[in-house]
Amino acid sequence: MQAPSHPRPALRAGLIGFGVVGSGTHGVLAANRQTIRARAGCAIDLTMVATRTASRAQAATDAGIEVMRCPMELARHPELDVVIEAMGGTTDARDCVMEAIAHGKHVVTANKALLATHGEEIFAAATARGVTVGFEAAVAVSIPIVKALREGLVANEIEWIAGIVNGTSNYVLTQMGAGGSSYADALAEAQALGYAEADPLLDVGGGDAAHKLALLAAIAFGGPPRLDAVHVEGIRSLQAADFLHAARLGYAVKLLAVARRSEGQVQLRVHPALLPRNSLLARVDGRMNGIMVKGDAAGVTMYYGAGAGSRETASAVVADLVDLARALRGGGRMCVPPLGFHDDNFAPPPMRALADVRMRNYLRFTLQRADAGPRVFEVLQRHGVLADKGTLSHDSLVMLTNAVAESQMLAALRDLEGVEGVRATPARLRVEELE
Amino acid sequence: MQAPSHPRPALRAGLIGFGVVGSGTHGVLAANRQTIRARAGCAIDLTMVATRTASRAQAATDAGIEVMRCPMELARHPELDVVIEAMGGTTDARDCVMEAIAHGKHVVTANKALLATHGEEIFAAATARGVTVGFEAAVAVSIPIVKALREGLVANEIEWIAGIVNGTSNYVLTQMGAGGSSYADALAEAQALGYAEADPLLDVGGGDAAHKLALLAAIAFGGPPRLDAVHVEGIRSLQAADFLHAARLGYAVKLLAVARRSEGQVQLRVHPALLPRNSLLARVDGRMNGIMVKGDAAGVTMYYGAGAGSRETASAVVADLVDLARALRGGGRMCVPPLGFHDDNFAPPPMRALADVRMRNYLRFTLQRADAGPRVFEVLQRHGVLADKGTLSHDSLVMLTNAVAESQMLAALRDLEGVEGVRATPARLRVEELE
Repeated sequence: MQAPSHPRPALRAGLIGFGVVGSGTHGVLAANRQTIRARAGCAIDLTMVATRTASRAQAATDAGIEVMRCPMELARHPELDVVIEAMGGTTDARDCVMEAIAHGKHVVTANKALLATHGEEIFAAATARGVTVGFEAAVAVSIPIVKALREGLVANEIEWIAGIVNGTSNYVLTQMGAGGSSYADALAEAQALGYAEADPLLDVGGGDAAHKLALLAAIAFGGPPRLDAVHVEGIRSLQAADFLHAARLGYAVKLLAVARRSEGQVQLRVHPALLPRNSLLARVDGRMNGIMVKGDAAGVTMYYGAGAGSRETASAVVADLVDLARALRGGGRMCVPPLGFHDDNFAPPPMRALADVRMRNYLRFTLQRADAGPRVFEVLQRHGVLADKGTLSHDSLVMLTNAVAESQMLAALRDLEGVEGVRATPARLRVEELE
Repeated sequence: MQAPSHPRPALRAGLIGFGVVGSGTHGVLAANRQTIRARAGCAIDLTMVATRTASRAQAATDAGIEVMRCPMELARHPELDVVIEAMGGTTDARDCVMEAIAHGKHVVTANKALLATHGEEIFAAATARGVTVGFEAAVAVSIPIVKALREGLVANEIEWIAGIVNGTSNYVLTQMGAGGSSYADALAEAQALGYAEADPLLDVGGGDAAHKLALLAAIAFGGPPRLDAVHVEGIRSLQAADFLHAARLGYAVKLLAVARRSEGQVQLRVHPALLPRNSLLARVDGRMNGIMVKGDAAGVTMYYGAGAGSRETASAVVADLVDLARALRGGGRMCVPPLGFHDDNFAPPPMRALADVRMRNYLRFTLQRADAGPRVFEVLQRHGVLADKGTLSHDSLVMLTNAVAESQMLAALRDLEGVEGVRATPARLRVEELE
């Protein structure tokens, strides 16, 4: 039987930062207040905001929220149950989150960079203090993928996760695939539309996707987030020609975040990849995010939605707040650990070095002599790299290889540097079969 | 601060029925026992099975499970924390579930028919007794859509849900769309492959989808499941020709379960519909399920996965068991109500009669005289039904209409019965724009 319920009047939330995420959270809590209260079992009150920006302070004041300048003061304020970290960055944000935890406050954050880099410390501190850290908004904002993996698929050994989790990159790649735009033009368009930052490095370099992958993999396989173990390649060197060749071969080009278990090890990698066009994941276009998961019981499931946006992010932040409110209602406690494992001694599988990962490869060689093609085949064959499919013209050779270890592929490519009549570095993309 | 944790040794589960769902649940619990225990915080032990089938009883005995013949005996057994109802049907299953609840046991079930018909009584009894009813497996088995709606999207006012939630129908429609098969041939193929029951009425008639829709709508909008309010049409009268016309117009034909809020009312309907082919939902093919949800904060999200299968269903059953184990660990209680609302006084929006629902329509008339086409236009126009798009040939007229109320459309169709040279009943499909 359940304990008697003594409804608390409200969950008191304080917000550090009143920008895109903060104001969106306030907006959603205000707009849907009645429904959220009926679902949560108590009201969720945003009572305090810490911000140094005058215009934001004014906006918060207008919304009837107490404003303070010092985020650390908010983090330790005795009249708060939960602190929403929406300031960004990994230094001050870390200090604020740790301060909130030390003062027995629950934390909700959308900050993937923070949790991917300081997650181990933060989650351990939260567990020790008996509070929780909600981060649904940190991965593919509007999509409840953290909850799906941590709770919905909890019965499964996860075999692989393949995600399109960076909307900026996906927009650029979709444009390159649709119209044959160059990378530079597609990025400039994304920037003009406000879909890409002035400094887009974290997005197009793959770093942002790596942050999210580290969090998803920690939930799927156990252990703390292992950002250090993620192999990261971005999309900056992609060329429009390869999108056309890929399409002819039946593939789309996507920036993928992949966590895959094989032979008792887990590989974590972010890189552009060829994805079968008949897969639903290949149809996730524009700024949208999509995450496909293969579990040993559930089989393949997929989750799709917006990867950015003020209200979209707020949807996930508020979901974490309602989780908390429901749990704390009647004096209870959060019963789902942030990363989904109650047993701290659970040993996650060891990491697999990229060199050992076997994949098919797409290769495009630029030929300067008509007889260079056969030589390329010869060198590749010497390394066990065979062409499953290919087209050879007077100036280019395009192929899909058999599945080979990354180390094998790299050795073959090194050897090819000496072949006359071939531009030294071919265009290369790994192939993700989603199997 | 959370309450001190006194881990219980195990959650003790009893299973009524040891068929597809029951044996799958046993299999997944056994195969992933270690990981499930680490995630749940305690073991989940399947200790008892009630079955009258000798072969199943033997299989359960072989698996080291205590077998009894009487399901009611299991339902009230003092050494169980949770009863998994996997017997099917709505009569004995109802009695067993009510008995388990009366004896203070939590219930997990995949039985959508049971909850859609007796849900109000069952959920009320569970709330009164302080136990929970888990039913993740009842809707789109492997996809954690109950959790996504009830928790992940909890911050949202749901604007609409559009689901492909019956794998059998979707397989038949996919075959009809791909190869121009007739309905009868596609169904026979599905039966030969074991994808359809010998009596497929519940699937192809739309009843199964209606059960699932009633449950999803209760979570999305509040109130008990309202099966009585669902307008249901199946796929039995669909003709191959309309799949071709639909494709030319840019649409796929799918059996959709739709819950949509408009003008403060909610409409619930299951019927075949034209779906824009560029929508991700239109790409959900074969036996797979897909559910698209529009929330006012999250925007459009989509959930995709298998809609049937032993281990796939078990994935969801075990997820409900782990939810319970995590909550009960340390003497806690379930904090999320089955349908997601803590406030029993929350007033759900009233139901909207189908007659008032405005939609575009696809119409195909068979013409017996060359001059019949213009007369059809004339009659339709008199009722405010205009052709947005259409093709007229000597023997057929195909069109997409403007958005009109169902009542308007029906009145026009009645009037058309008197027009000479037109086969009385045109093929008609509603258009779902997912907007």
